[in-house]
Amino acid sequence: MTTATEQVAAEPRRRTGVWFVGARGSVATTATVGALAVRAGLAGRTGLVGELPEVAAARLGDLGGLVVGGHDVSATPIGKRAEALAAGGVLPYDLPRALAAELAGVDARIRPGVNAADVPQRQAARALESDLRSFRTAHGLDRVVVVDVSSTEPPVGASPVLDSLDELEQALDRGESPLPASSLYAYAAFRAGCPLVAFTPSPGPRPAALGELAQECRLPWAGCDGKTGETLLKTALAPVFATRALRVRSWASVNLLGGGDGATLADPAAVVSKTATKGRGLEVILGERVDGPMHIDYVEDLGEWKTAWDHVSFEGFLGTRMSLQFTWQGCDSALAAPLVLDLVRLVARAHQVGEVGPLTALGFFFKDPAGSDEHRLSAQWDALCAWCARLGEADR
Amino acid sequence: MTTATEQVAAEPRRRTGVWFVGARGSVATTATVGALAVRAGLAGRTGLVGELPEVAAARLGDLGGLVVGGHDVSATPIGKRAEALAAGGVLPYDLPRALAAELAGVDARIRPGVNAADVPQRQAARALESDLRSFRTAHGLDRVVVVDVSSTEPPVGASPVLDSLDELEQALDRGESPLPASSLYAYAAFRAGCPLVAFTPSPGPRPAALGELAQECRLPWAGCDGKTGETLLKTALAPVFATRALRVRSWASVNLLGGGDGATLADPAAVVSKTATKGRGLEVILGERVDGPMHIDYVEDLGEWKTAWDHVSFEGFLGTRMSLQFTWQGCDSALAAPLVLDLVRLVARAHQVGEVGPLTALGFFFKDPAGSDEHRLSAQWDALCAWCARLGEADR
Amino acid sequence: MTTATEQVAAEPRRRTGVWFVGARGSVATTATVGALAVRAGLAGRTGLVGELPEVAAARLGDLGGLVVGGHDVSATPIGKRAEALAAGGVLPYDLPRALAAELAGVDARIRPGVNAADVPQRQAARALESDLRSFRTAHGLDRVVVVDVSSTEPPVGASPVLDSLDELEQALDRGESPLPASSLYAYAAFRAGCPLVAFTPSPGPRPAALGELAQECRLPWAGCDGKTGETLLKTALAPVFATRALRVRSWASVNLLGGGDGATLADPAAVVSKTATKGRGLEVILGERVDGPMHIDYVEDLGEWKTAWDHVSFEGFLGTRMSLQFTWQGCDSALAAPLVLDLVRLVARAHQVGEVGPLTALGFFFKDPAGSDEHRLSAQWDALCAWCARLGEADR
Amino acid sequence: MTTATEQVAAEPRRRTGVWFVGARGSVATTATVGALAVRAGLAGRTGLVGELPEVAAARLGDLGGLVVGGHDVSATPIGKRAEALAAGGVLPYDLPRALAAELAGVDARIRPGVNAADVPQRQAARALESDLRSFRTAHGLDRVVVVDVSSTEPPVGASPVLDSLDELEQALDRGESPLPASSLYAYAAFRAGCPLVAFTPSPGPRPAALGELAQECRLPWAGCDGKTGETLLKTALAPVFATRALRVRSWASVNLLGGGDGATLADPAAVVSKTATKGRGLEVILGERVDGPMHIDYVEDLGEWKTAWDHVSFEGFLGTRMSLQFTWQGCDSALAAPLVLDLVRLVARAHQVGEVGPLTALGFFFKDPAGSDEHRLSAQWDALCAWCARLGEADR
Repeated sequence: MTTATEQVAAEPRRRTGVWFVGARGSVATTATVGALAVRAGLAGRTGLVGELPEVAAARLGDLGGLVVGGHDVSATPIGKRAEALAAGGVLPYDLPRALAAELAGVDARIRPGVNAADVPQRQAARALESDLRSFRTAHGLDRVVVVDVSSTEPPVGASPVLDSLDELEQALDRGESPLPASSLYAYAAFRAGCPLVAFTPSPGPRPAALGELAQECRLPWAGCDGKTGETLLKTALAPVFATRALRVRSWASVNLLGGGDGATLADPAAVVSKTATKGRGLEVILGERVDGPMHIDYVEDLGEWKTAWDHVSFEGFLGTRMSLQFTWQGCDSALAAPLVLDLVRLVARAHQVGEVGPLTALGFFFKDPAGSDEHRLSAQWDALCAWCARLGEADR
Repeated sequence: MTTATEQVAAEPRRRTGVWFVGARGSVATTATVGALAVRAGLAGRTGLVGELPEVAAARLGDLGGLVVGGHDVSATPIGKRAEALAAGGVLPYDLPRALAAELAGVDARIRPGVNAADVPQRQAARALESDLRSFRTAHGLDRVVVVDVSSTEPPVGASPVLDSLDELEQALDRGESPLPASSLYAYAAFRAGCPLVAFTPSPGPRPAALGELAQECRLPWAGCDGKTGETLLKTALAPVFATRALRVRSWASVNLLGGGDGATLADPAAVVSKTATKGRGLEVILGERVDGPMHIDYVEDLGEWKTAWDHVSFEGFLGTRMSLQFTWQGCDSALAAPLVLDLVRLVARAHQVGEVGPLTALGFFFKDPAGSDEHRLSAQWDALCAWCARLGEADR
Repeated sequence: MTTATEQVAAEPRRRTGVWFVGARGSVATTATVGALAVRAGLAGRTGLVGELPEVAAARLGDLGGLVVGGHDVSATPIGKRAEALAAGGVLPYDLPRALAAELAGVDARIRPGVNAADVPQRQAARALESDLRSFRTAHGLDRVVVVDVSSTEPPVGASPVLDSLDELEQALDRGESPLPASSLYAYAAFRAGCPLVAFTPSPGPRPAALGELAQECRLPWAGCDGKTGETLLKTALAPVFATRALRVRSWASVNLLGGGDGATLADPAAVVSKTATKGRGLEVILGERVDGPMHIDYVEDLGEWKTAWDHVSFEGFLGTRMSLQFTWQGCDSALAAPLVLDLVRLVARAHQVGEVGPLTALGFFFKDPAGSDEHRLSAQWDALCAWCARLGEADR
Repeated sequence: MTTATEQVAAEPRRRTGVWFVGARGSVATTATVGALAVRAGLAGRTGLVGELPEVAAARLGDLGGLVVGGHDVSATPIGKRAEALAAGGVLPYDLPRALAAELAGVDARIRPGVNAADVPQRQAARALESDLRSFRTAHGLDRVVVVDVSSTEPPVGASPVLDSLDELEQALDRGESPLPASSLYAYAAFRAGCPLVAFTPSPGPRPAALGELAQECRLPWAGCDGKTGETLLKTALAPVFATRALRVRSWASVNLLGGGDGATLADPAAVVSKTATKGRGLEVILGERVDGPMHIDYVEDLGEWKTAWDHVSFEGFLGTRMSLQFTWQGCDSALAAPLVLDLVRLVARAHQVGEVGPLTALGFFFKDPAGSDEHRLSAQWDALCAWCARLGEADR
């Protein structure tokens, strides 16, 4: 794994900001600590896809140059959160201490989030937008990428107000609050001229009205729902059955989650978003609906860790029944954080070269790739590499 | 899964023979029963890669048109062997009975194999070659594909006699017997004008002298060592780690095998061939040697079944340690037999359009792809599809 | 494993009948085929606990002497059902054919079951009771053991009518139908003087009114819910943690079931009975409630097979976190059927020596042992052996 | 889990010393840190069997009163070793720092070990014996329990010198060195009047000559080879098959070990000791030899952790084949250390009440229980509890 440092060094300096929605959560904290640690030479680049030569070929901005800010409804300082993660084995024990000053600096740039139901959303959106503009100006940033890593929301039902930007604007003008929180943040981001990464399965930029807005503002965005564990494996393994003409008879999936993510998903409404995005790929890859339960269970004692068990029953030549099982034991934040940093750099670069709308070439990173029906991991990798090669040629 | 029957129906009838080296073994018996059952409408086409539209695009010969013969040192009739496989749950219970007459017909075409050490190999090769020519003539076949599915042999050491066709011929002329059995069969196949499939890890067509011979005879061949289980999964999963920039720290593999294949591999010399071909892919895909044991154990009670357990320890962002385990429970013959039938049809087609030498586009089927260093399953699939598309256009 | 045949041979012949509620279901069919096959010398005694010397010490009646009859609402002959089980790999392929005549004989003794809601239960009970008395008389049986292996019912709510035999009789006299079907069968069994085995988690003999009735009729009974798979392992493994002072932090259980049992349990009301009996043991053994989901999922393609995956997270010295996972792949009927035959012989023997009420020494066989809070498998084994030794001395 | 503190408080103070052979290894370090942490109120008592009421009933000495010393050939201070273990997640991160002074105190009591081959063993034994006597006197200890937790040695062949104490003494007098190191330490321990715990599979006190010596010195000893992981589970699970009359057809075991223990076992001679003790129990419990490989593999990256995978193929009623798999992920030191502390307290108590020779009631703790053929974990637990109850009554 050679890094892309030399190539990148030659680039004109671009200053990129990252604005986390959910800036004091596990994923944002791990990403922030990680970016600072890499800059300080306290950590390596394992897990950063952007450091692989095929992706670095896009001429990405430097990881060390990122300036971090964000919104959060929690008041626990990011430094404290980092210490808790270190105690749980997610971060190297000494890192939060070593980066205490830098983390305090980030924490000072975190602004209180809005509660989507509290105030008329027109007003709330203006406040969020203003936070983003101030951040960009204050730090002399060329661009700010907004990344939603906040708690998963339930899916929204069909609604005419969300189906058209015109209708949405009129509703906001009437003092209504039709947007789920994730879409409110997406609205503010686009209005502030910021590209977006939707890392959760929440609605975010997906309602049609917001798609129109991104188009109108000439902004790229990426989503949805980071593919970090069980679904990652599913989209690598399902093609084995498809290309070997083996018939998958059932595929059972069990996800045991601890920590914050799990707790949110103990809410049955929120879990609907997750099981929907998780189930989609299998059906597309195998070309038919497959029987079998999919469970997402909150098991408090697992902390930041998750264990997934999948059982696949399949049929081979002459009807012979066979099976595959796997167990994946991963740390959610450690898997998600580097992808978030990769996406920030990739989306910033896409913005720089003028790409607009859902970035379909980034499906590699997502359970529910916006604008694409390609779920096979390796095909997504090929698409990513091809796109990065193109980006690399874009503005020479 | 749409089948390719309609397309193929329009083709001019080509008559293809299959000649199994090890014709009364589990894999050849299952392949033979399967081909007969599909022809008789007693079985479906699950597991046959050649029936997927991307592969059928090559305009393959019809499965039902295959004529089966072969060599074997065993005298147990193939019908008896089929009954034993049915009793063990590998074949549907009634199939051997339903196909008894056809199986007897095949059995009548099986000729005694040679023991490589018994007679001067010049003479043995002539006898084998004559069997092949007689088979082709007697059944009016356009071509005969020889498939080695006999017991695994130990690797051969370096030897000048195997390094050049000239040297080899002189040694044979001198009455020597320098060839391992699998290479003796390959020699006879090529001399008889037959393309070859090397489905085991035995030396077969790999010594340079035999490569020269294939070239001289303008024959294609495919190999080596069918990728049916644990290695199949490895080459689908290792790219996940590679493309996600995750560092694999160790990869332990345990294979519990029953039946004949297992028994051969209880011989430590033979197992060397197997572990060598199994280990190769991981290193190539991950770009470095990976620690961890690889065991192949013979457990008699497992019969035709095999269970593989793999444990992968890997490191993510900021050094976090995570793991993946999988258990694969498969039936060796049910996995191998359809691939053998696919390879016969693909190699026959390659021969028809004039391809010569190792067919690198068939790496998808093999643990140790001849002429190629591409081990990633999905990249192999893409290469296979591209090649099939080309073959489809070849002689219109 | 020495068998108890010689010992038993010396006993005075006792003629025991088995009356299955659900006589054409998978478990009853497998038990019936098994008993016939053992008698005919077509099968061995693996899986029969009653053949272990410690249990045979009770001087059990001979397996070959059992006469089988039963109730069922299904009309599919037991011979047909046996063939289906053989096709699914649960029974040796040739057994149903070899035993066709005997199976037809059993089938002729199966009477239509009652639908608990159809007729006043006083009348229904009399009909069932009369079936049992006729069976006993017609075959000159010393006793008939009724075994409930019918579909699982939901638990019943508290009800004064089920709490006292007096109240129950008055309700029946008033033409009411207060009993769940399983308890109606238990009522009829006791009234007919038959001891009972409650092999499912249905209410059966557990309501207090039926307990009184068993006492009044001086009858023994055994239950509830055969311990055949995941719970069997749980009650063997939980004591490891308890006696090693390791703290179990979470225990997640996933059961994938096919076939009939699974289909019933797809009904969420019925599954409540099952999860209740499955969960009980763990808490008692570990001395505290343990976090973690318990899933029972119906996966049609699994047929008669079930796969359970359990994940146990535990804490050792100085807070170190460790884990245990297991996967159990079993055939429900093959596991349950021999236990049913064991229980028939044990309960018949208990009846012979005059035991009355719930047989607490039979907890070894059950998920929810009637009359006992001992769930540890080995302690249950010890209790069983001690009881069998006592029975062996009882009437010499 | 109630602790035994109140009971024990009333006992007359006994001062017990622990002398570790291998005092700076992982197990001894973890045990030492653990005992100090419990005393300081910095850690709980999870994992300590001696704190369960059934075992505490023996009236064990207080954990906090133990004085630790030992031999080691390594010079790395125990404090440094503790820090390395904390970095690897085996010990809570802050513990080594918090206990630095106490650990330095222990380290000052560690004496250089002997190399068994270096000097005539008569002289070496005297030096070791003198270390033990000095330790006991210097700290005013009532007794010192020697615990062998050093590296595993190969088994010794038959030798007349090791078969009789007389012969052994004469050989030592002749200046010979016939003892493996573990037996040399056992010799010195007994000569110094110290009871012994053999926690490894090394020969230690097992040669007959040393058994005689223990008898002559009226000393109790316990062994051999702590049962901490895969074998623990085996001896809990094998009785399930035995008591359910299920036939185990094969049992495959794979142990992936990191760290020091693994490294030693990369030596094929040493691994023989381990596989011998590991294999014994299964055969005894099941009453027959069982097919299947047993692997112990060193995988460096696993550090102090071990992962075991077992695959059990078994046969039920009517020959149906089923399987059980388990994966155990544990930390060797965290599992072994509390058992070592339990054994010290139990053996000290046995010494106090005058028990002599191998303590068969301690089989619960060992893979190869000295003086006993009982391997079933629950039967061992029952025996331990009964013995502890007796000890509790011993000297009132």
